[in-house]
Amino acid sequence: MKQEEVLLVLLNEYADWESAFLAAGLRTGGRYVPRVVGATREPVCSLGGFRTLPDYDFQTLPDEYAALVLIGGTGWQSAAAAGVVGPVQHARDNGRIVGGICNGASFLAAHGFLNDVRHTGNTLEQLKLWGGDRYTNEAGYVERQAVADGGIVTANGTGYLEFSRELLLLLEADAPERIEADYAFQKNGLYSA
Amino acid sequence: MKQEEVLLVLLNEYADWESAFLAAGLRTGGRYVPRVVGATREPVCSLGGFRTLPDYDFQTLPDEYAALVLIGGTGWQSAAAAGVVGPVQHARDNGRIVGGICNGASFLAAHGFLNDVRHTGNTLEQLKLWGGDRYTNEAGYVERQAVADGGIVTANGTGYLEFSRELLLLLEADAPERIEADYAFQKNGLYSA
Repeated sequence: MKQEEVLLVLLNEYADWESAFLAAGLRTGGRYVPRVVGATREPVCSLGGFRTLPDYDFQTLPDEYAALVLIGGTGWQSAAAAGVVGPVQHARDNGRIVGGICNGASFLAAHGFLNDVRHTGNTLEQLKLWGGDRYTNEAGYVERQAVADGGIVTANGTGYLEFSRELLLLLEADAPERIEADYAFQKNGLYSA
Repeated sequence: MKQEEVLLVLLNEYADWESAFLAAGLRTGGRYVPRVVGATREPVCSLGGFRTLPDYDFQTLPDEYAALVLIGGTGWQSAAAAGVVGPVQHARDNGRIVGGICNGASFLAAHGFLNDVRHTGNTLEQLKLWGGDRYTNEAGYVERQAVADGGIVTANGTGYLEFSRELLLLLEADAPERIEADYAFQKNGLYSA
């Protein structure tokens, strides 16, 4: 079976932990290959100072992929972030799954992508602040760590495990019981203290 | 104040989540700079398929640094890992803090570095299996997510938050109440479900 690609968009000062479990979980299942997308092909620098090499840039995105995921961080109000609107619209127009965690979710709100789905994010206040008139779905905000609805998965920045679980389940990246077991193991820990 | 370096050792197939919170936490405090150490200067590939550029390789490690941290993954029984024994010995001989999470802790056990400190890891059974005759401190094994003792911090692979907290506290990387608050926020989440 040909592996499908899942595109993870990283901007400078991305949050290391928000992609970590998702990318590893995708590779565990074996059905998908995670690919890093940067604004350019230059290394992207994380909040932890890691320099990550992109596999694609905004100009070289493939047409075929299973999901487009916006990883949070402090770059989602920068000029570079504007280049992600087109790719998100492409994903929605073509029925691909879209993910946004932390400020990635705020960015989705700011560009009107959360107006027809239940969703969550870094508090309702932040989505309203970023979205302004473009965000019209206050009623769709759910106070949960992660929410999947209508092909869009959102989470707040501490919802990295739940975000990963929802995306892996939606993508059928592995057996559901294995996805749930991995989630529980990381959430609860090997030891109780 | 001159920033001190904290060296994070990554081997191929390192676990993305085991360095994520620590590296970001170090940069938040501002007193330290995390630096990535690879076997060579070629990109290191994570379990999630991320390609990370090292700042140093095993031949170019600086003499001055505050801590040396072995990030887990599936590479710690590879030939490349043997090159980390010397750097760990250097750190111990010079009173630097040493960290090992997941198979990084197993590696420390396998090379006799846990025999005079209380510690934890990916189960006692794994440390005995990896350590054989070189691991003589079964009595020092503690069933906790992370343990700091005698300048060595160890954790199992699900103890990524506790590992980060213990190292940040030991390094005095930030105000203790801020380290504890960040830990609790990530551990408990913004929402309860």
